[in-house]
Amino acid sequence: MSEQYGKVTDEIAARLGEIVGSGNLMYGDAEAMEDYAGDEAGPFFRHAPEAVVKPESTEQVAQIMKLANQHRIAVVARGAGSGLAGAATPLQGGIVLSLEKMNHILEIDMLNRVVVAEPGVVTNDLCRTVAEQGLMYAGYPMSTETSFIGGNVATNAGGGKVIKYGNTRAHVLGLEVVTPTGEVMQLGGKYRKDTWGYNLFHLVVGSEGTLAVVTKVYLNLVPLPGKTVDLLVPFPDIDTAVSSVAALVRSPKVTPVAVEYMDQYSVILATRYFNTSWPLQDTAQAYLIVQLEGADQEELEEQYENAGDICLEQGAMDVFVAESRSDSHNLWKVRQEWGPAVRAADATSYSACDVVVPLGQVPAFMAKVAEMENERKMRIPTVAHIADGNFHPKSMRPEGLPLDQWPEVAESVYHEMIQTAVELGGAGSGEHGVGYSKRPMFLANTPPHQLEILKGIKQVFDPNGILNPGKIF
Amino acid sequence: MSEQYGKVTDEIAARLGEIVGSGNLMYGDAEAMEDYAGDEAGPFFRHAPEAVVKPESTEQVAQIMKLANQHRIAVVARGAGSGLAGAATPLQGGIVLSLEKMNHILEIDMLNRVVVAEPGVVTNDLCRTVAEQGLMYAGYPMSTETSFIGGNVATNAGGGKVIKYGNTRAHVLGLEVVTPTGEVMQLGGKYRKDTWGYNLFHLVVGSEGTLAVVTKVYLNLVPLPGKTVDLLVPFPDIDTAVSSVAALVRSPKVTPVAVEYMDQYSVILATRYFNTSWPLQDTAQAYLIVQLEGADQEELEEQYENAGDICLEQGAMDVFVAESRSDSHNLWKVRQEWGPAVRAADATSYSACDVVVPLGQVPAFMAKVAEMENERKMRIPTVAHIADGNFHPKSMRPEGLPLDQWPEVAESVYHEMIQTAVELGGAGSGEHGVGYSKRPMFLANTPPHQLEILKGIKQVFDPNGILNPGKIF
Repeated sequence: MSEQYGKVTDEIAARLGEIVGSGNLMYGDAEAMEDYAGDEAGPFFRHAPEAVVKPESTEQVAQIMKLANQHRIAVVARGAGSGLAGAATPLQGGIVLSLEKMNHILEIDMLNRVVVAEPGVVTNDLCRTVAEQGLMYAGYPMSTETSFIGGNVATNAGGGKVIKYGNTRAHVLGLEVVTPTGEVMQLGGKYRKDTWGYNLFHLVVGSEGTLAVVTKVYLNLVPLPGKTVDLLVPFPDIDTAVSSVAALVRSPKVTPVAVEYMDQYSVILATRYFNTSWPLQDTAQAYLIVQLEGADQEELEEQYENAGDICLEQGAMDVFVAESRSDSHNLWKVRQEWGPAVRAADATSYSACDVVVPLGQVPAFMAKVAEMENERKMRIPTVAHIADGNFHPKSMRPEGLPLDQWPEVAESVYHEMIQTAVELGGAGSGEHGVGYSKRPMFLANTPPHQLEILKGIKQVFDPNGILNPGKIF
Repeated sequence: MSEQYGKVTDEIAARLGEIVGSGNLMYGDAEAMEDYAGDEAGPFFRHAPEAVVKPESTEQVAQIMKLANQHRIAVVARGAGSGLAGAATPLQGGIVLSLEKMNHILEIDMLNRVVVAEPGVVTNDLCRTVAEQGLMYAGYPMSTETSFIGGNVATNAGGGKVIKYGNTRAHVLGLEVVTPTGEVMQLGGKYRKDTWGYNLFHLVVGSEGTLAVVTKVYLNLVPLPGKTVDLLVPFPDIDTAVSSVAALVRSPKVTPVAVEYMDQYSVILATRYFNTSWPLQDTAQAYLIVQLEGADQEELEEQYENAGDICLEQGAMDVFVAESRSDSHNLWKVRQEWGPAVRAADATSYSACDVVVPLGQVPAFMAKVAEMENERKMRIPTVAHIADGNFHPKSMRPEGLPLDQWPEVAESVYHEMIQTAVELGGAGSGEHGVGYSKRPMFLANTPPHQLEILKGIKQVFDPNGILNPGKIF
């Protein structure tokens, strides 16, 4: 396919240098550009770009897109590169348009409770900055320390707090974008209700950089909650953990911010990684971490007492309250660093998938993972944003399986999990995106007439197909 | 334009009768079809259809669309006809596809907290049915007693509770739709996180029946709140009312469900209509109705005491608490029947607009309305979902202005209000939609390249342009 795209010639590189300034252009230095060859999906999903540009303004982005469109050069807009689906890989070479220098918080509008930010702002920096004003950005992917807010928009990032606050989409009030043909569009803004033509910004959110380059993000903020507490709840078996989740989300007496699930083997690996241990981890088959908020101590206590009672009624072995900041930190780091912990135990472990199923199908999906573990004699440690039905099973190489046979096995398990989720009425990606790694499964599971509509929309935005080609479909 | 569309011939009417059954077809009886000639936008926006069909299943809708597409006959999907923008008017004649018989709640899934409903279910019936199960549908347009849930989806209906719960869009988890070419698509479903290709259901929400016919709606439900209370708060002037709104939304101590604004003249007209009066209505220049919820009486009292204190600090004249169901009912009926009340005072009063501005621009917009009232020597009673910056000013005919000159004056005021909202960083419609009545203003305020994208998307879904032609753009 690559022959249909234009190449970054010396002449074009010179033009790019004129647009962004020579200090913001990488060209000809393959080693330096290696960092821009992909994301965190793994070594199978890397490809070298021909040039990397780091624009500092919307106008520069527009000029880059116009130039690329004129010469039909593929462009991949890149955030922090913390994606997990290969969406940032420049499959066709071409230009990587890195947004790392468009990293300014442009405005915190206190009256409207809106923050306006460039796409290259690290999500957690944004959270910290608005917190100083007593406000909270409630979108919160687990990768918040590294990911850019623009990347969160591109993937409609989820994370742990979706059950209370919703995905990234729920917080976006507007976007400024540059189309593949170099037009600047203002979509939405600081207003909160909108039936003024098709909602294009909701179309761009989650489009994984295939429809437009996001150059400005308008985000809703909420008052910072007064108090937060985390509960660590061990269960004797998976079923009681799952029934507790159902009871928690059904109760009018608690509004959990996060309900995270870890299976026993995940806890063993992740606590070992930190040279620590969790209570009852030799006998508990499953854990929930339940985060709760309250305007004041009284409300907080009511929330966590109710939540604890619900879990105990369902058969929890105990309920541990992590009320101090350091207790909470220690709890969450085990969950957040679960991925590296599994990799430490098996460097060849496969990329975690991120399927989603209706809550009612959580037991069926778990049974399927257990079945795969038994049939294939392998370990699949699993964590989940379980109240959303959003699973991260991560396959480990079975003992004795030769390394060269592993990718095929791992990919087949990965595909089987996606197929299972779709057949259970869910979807193949809840938060990481289709990108490049899930493309075959997306194509296999999308009806032809629907695929035609998706391709048609892509064509409308990007007639020359230059923006992030080969992703999603 | 109408010559480009096919006509409903006797032969086609016969085919339609075969699809839906003769009892569900209206054809040839102009008088009976008069009810299907438009919505509540007013007499200027009516046009007779050639046939009305009332399908009872998705399969019937698909067959109707295939037949219409084959003969290039215009089709308008119709809900309750309670729209206010002329979106349901069959401008080209053709077929009105009324969804009134697809009015079943198909499933209340308690575990997933999802209701699956056909589009013709009256929103309030849906609310009442799920409330029996302890659940709440939090989308709540003011027209909830009449509007259909399918129409709410088509307009991304707003209403009073958006500040806490969001527009209709925020509650939609999935849709089943029939495309203009007669293909059935399942978009989303019972799962809660989704980065699995472009989000088509968010594109269909708010598309005013121009992209697809909604045949099934999957809606998120939340636990029914324990207790609700309404505050009626009179203010000596508009400024103190507005500053109270800003203080209420900024406070972490209150989470208002609704903050409704009524100006003095609106209150006078609406209380007179019900032969009642509100406290201090001779001196208060503005009122807020503030609705609050609490899990129990204690939390409720905390909420309303905090909210009351905030309003008093800002200069409210008093705070009246409507705690009983009948007090609340009497309060809200004045607000909800404000439209008929204005019409009772002036039968020629013009359709209320529904512009939206950022909260920070609320005073600027209000100043503009006051300026128009002075300049044109007319009354423009105004209510607002003020915490969303969403206004409903309704123009009354100036005394002495001849009736035949009024439509032009009223339309010019209407356009000026939309233009003002757009220039203040808002939009021309917050919740009613562009439909037909705002189409000229939408076209005038949308940049050409953006319009091309909207038209391109329309073309992708509807290559023959048969579904609700002439609306939005």
